[in-house]
Amino acid sequence: MSQDDLASLRVDKARLMSDLHTTCEWGKGESWGDVEADHFHSGETETGMSRLSLSDTDRQARDWFHRTATELGCKVHTDAMGNQFAVRPGLSNDAAPTYAGSHLDTQPTGGRYDGILGVTAAIEMLRTLNDNWIETAYPVGVVNWTNEEGARFPMSMVASGVWAGSISVERAHDLKSVIPSSDTATIQTELERIGYLGEVPCSWEATPMAAHFELHIEQGPILEAENRRIGVVRGVQSYKWFTVTVRGRDSHTGATSFQHRADALLTASKMILASHKVASKHGALASTGILTLKPGSTNTVPGFVQFSLDVRAPQDDTVEAVESECRSAFIALAAGEDALQINTGCTPSSRQCSVEWRTDFVSPATHFHGDCIACVQAAGSHLCGGGEVKDKDIGSWGKLMTSGAGHDSVYTNKRCPTCMIFVPCRDGVSHNPAEYSSPEACEDGANVLLGAVVRYDKLRSERGR
Amino acid sequence: MSQDDLASLRVDKARLMSDLHTTCEWGKGESWGDVEADHFHSGETETGMSRLSLSDTDRQARDWFHRTATELGCKVHTDAMGNQFAVRPGLSNDAAPTYAGSHLDTQPTGGRYDGILGVTAAIEMLRTLNDNWIETAYPVGVVNWTNEEGARFPMSMVASGVWAGSISVERAHDLKSVIPSSDTATIQTELERIGYLGEVPCSWEATPMAAHFELHIEQGPILEAENRRIGVVRGVQSYKWFTVTVRGRDSHTGATSFQHRADALLTASKMILASHKVASKHGALASTGILTLKPGSTNTVPGFVQFSLDVRAPQDDTVEAVESECRSAFIALAAGEDALQINTGCTPSSRQCSVEWRTDFVSPATHFHGDCIACVQAAGSHLCGGGEVKDKDIGSWGKLMTSGAGHDSVYTNKRCPTCMIFVPCRDGVSHNPAEYSSPEACEDGANVLLGAVVRYDKLRSERGR
Repeated sequence: MSQDDLASLRVDKARLMSDLHTTCEWGKGESWGDVEADHFHSGETETGMSRLSLSDTDRQARDWFHRTATELGCKVHTDAMGNQFAVRPGLSNDAAPTYAGSHLDTQPTGGRYDGILGVTAAIEMLRTLNDNWIETAYPVGVVNWTNEEGARFPMSMVASGVWAGSISVERAHDLKSVIPSSDTATIQTELERIGYLGEVPCSWEATPMAAHFELHIEQGPILEAENRRIGVVRGVQSYKWFTVTVRGRDSHTGATSFQHRADALLTASKMILASHKVASKHGALASTGILTLKPGSTNTVPGFVQFSLDVRAPQDDTVEAVESECRSAFIALAAGEDALQINTGCTPSSRQCSVEWRTDFVSPATHFHGDCIACVQAAGSHLCGGGEVKDKDIGSWGKLMTSGAGHDSVYTNKRCPTCMIFVPCRDGVSHNPAEYSSPEACEDGANVLLGAVVRYDKLRSERGR
Repeated sequence: MSQDDLASLRVDKARLMSDLHTTCEWGKGESWGDVEADHFHSGETETGMSRLSLSDTDRQARDWFHRTATELGCKVHTDAMGNQFAVRPGLSNDAAPTYAGSHLDTQPTGGRYDGILGVTAAIEMLRTLNDNWIETAYPVGVVNWTNEEGARFPMSMVASGVWAGSISVERAHDLKSVIPSSDTATIQTELERIGYLGEVPCSWEATPMAAHFELHIEQGPILEAENRRIGVVRGVQSYKWFTVTVRGRDSHTGATSFQHRADALLTASKMILASHKVASKHGALASTGILTLKPGSTNTVPGFVQFSLDVRAPQDDTVEAVESECRSAFIALAAGEDALQINTGCTPSSRQCSVEWRTDFVSPATHFHGDCIACVQAAGSHLCGGGEVKDKDIGSWGKLMTSGAGHDSVYTNKRCPTCMIFVPCRDGVSHNPAEYSSPEACEDGANVLLGAVVRYDKLRSERGR
């Protein structure tokens, strides 16, 4: 196939959006649009998603993936973490496939595009290759990774982590559901229950990849604000997740003076504020998404609070610095001392709280592979190129970016050349029912994904591996 | 009976403590002592209580109350809120009884003394009157009020509130359990389930009281710190309960810059800190005991937070001032403006949160009745009197106090002369498994309760009503 033929390949926007919204029938979440609105065709997709990993609705989406890829002529297998791999044969099938993929699970109040776009665009890639009778030099694959969100089983990207050899399959299998709190399921019991505990070991050796390309919505506001169509993602920022436990003393809200309290929630509130101030100082991010307390009564000062802390920055040493300063500030605040002027105006107490840190997850800064970045940039430039190319500006159509969020590509990058493609999403909103990328943006991303994969296949063909 | 005979009446400490710890077998909570300790008789009562109102264990305690009072010769009836009233006849039974009582329900992680001491001491009063063949001029009663804590059904003192006519029985019956959150029981369904939905209407007219005396642990540190045996409680501080709802926007923790966030939890943390600072300035109390958020995922900035706010001060206008300043501060903080220097060092955001207030409960400052206060003071002074009486100092044995916590006596005081008696509790701890008052303190309190009730009966007899 000539370079011109390659360049003329285009996905079918309507079919792509149909696949995306069809799969979103399984696990519909909260509505975000004006459900009473009289716009033709608008209201029906104005719901978010709540498709927790390995739930019954996730099983329905997996069934669709298996059925559709099989119908498109792929061989599909599932590994011990429930990862699904569909492979379309190439002219030579002695080497590993070039993969495109993402994940079909969502946040409990998530949207229709995070992950889902990446998988459905990869399926659309298969459809387009078939329609055009394209024979690639090497096999091309599509992958659906399990529990990327970490929302139900509290370790994000856990299944690509096992595949990469960074997490043991035993540890992953034993992860317990956190939603709802009464759910006692583990990854293993749920894989068995829904019939997706595959016999193939979960590893990069059992299921090798020549490369991994992932299309994803940006989940931030930059592309939209700068009016650019494609983000060429060079890497992912560094991040760490912690669980912080504050212990004080339950006491009566009416009868216990401020001087006699060890108020775990007031102290945790100061810590959350402190983490924000420390991160602000460093140009980093610090966020708390989970907070639980005991005993939970209006007239009892809580003696126990536990909260998550998510620290991110482009550089590993910035994350370390924020962690270190937060640790010091939290110890000071628990002891009733001041940090960052937060205690000014508070009543000193004769009682202290204690604070414990637990590190749950460490993801160092990731730098994607130059060959893959070049393929994405070439595909983007060919599709929608234009504008001046100067220094790091690749033209007004696109932008070289660092991802703020983690993705399965962080783990695949440890074992094979990897790159990601971002498309704009409205207002930068994600992890929210109102998450939205226009059909045109989805089409752009799918075309760049297709273009990057065929370009990478061509590169492999030229190199003979 | 002569004044000397009255003065010689004493409760049986061992029997009182036996009743107290026997009833605490139903609904045992978390242990607080050294369970491995080799102290004779110590470990077995070193557990707290978790006897939520209208639970199965509460029913067991109610059964004990009914059985015991009946065996002591009382007529026992239950009203439509499950309040239990036991009446020991007097020489004349044409007038309402003089009551002593409190409550048998506890916090989810409560102690053995809050409420329970008041009821068991009132039962011990009946035993002592019987042992001494005392015939009072008018009937003497004991009352066990339902759901005083407001921990399971979120309205404290709700059943005395209905009795006083301040809360409608329909509203009270419809209150839904908040522990656990999946429990759909209401007060009415639970009263029916455990068999304590009485046929007598819940009202001060159907069950009149001549007076109400309530013995309670102080739940604060003052008596212990000043080495005084008895608190003569003149009234209860003013308080208000609110539910505050903060709405922001769910967004991804990694991909959403601080500038683009509407972080409901960060904002709520600032509000909790602000309420503490405002209350500190006014010498008042502000406390948050409940906080829930959505969606609850480590990598999602919460878009929804709801928390309780409990504001207390001795004067109504202080509570109003704290409320007013908190409202202003919360609006400013939600809008991203500063209040009380809390925003210093935070990253400004282009997005705002919204804030809503709901007032759940208003309890103005309460002033108990002079006759009842005089009876308590006389009984206390006679039992353990000593020290110089000067101005407001009633002698080193006791102290005139204002209660920090609300009690059923706040409502009875609306319909009959009322007073409370406090005894010291270790370290001021309450609403905590480690809550503790010594047997000697419990005995002191029970003797003063007994002394106050017989003195009040004598006063009635002298007045002929």
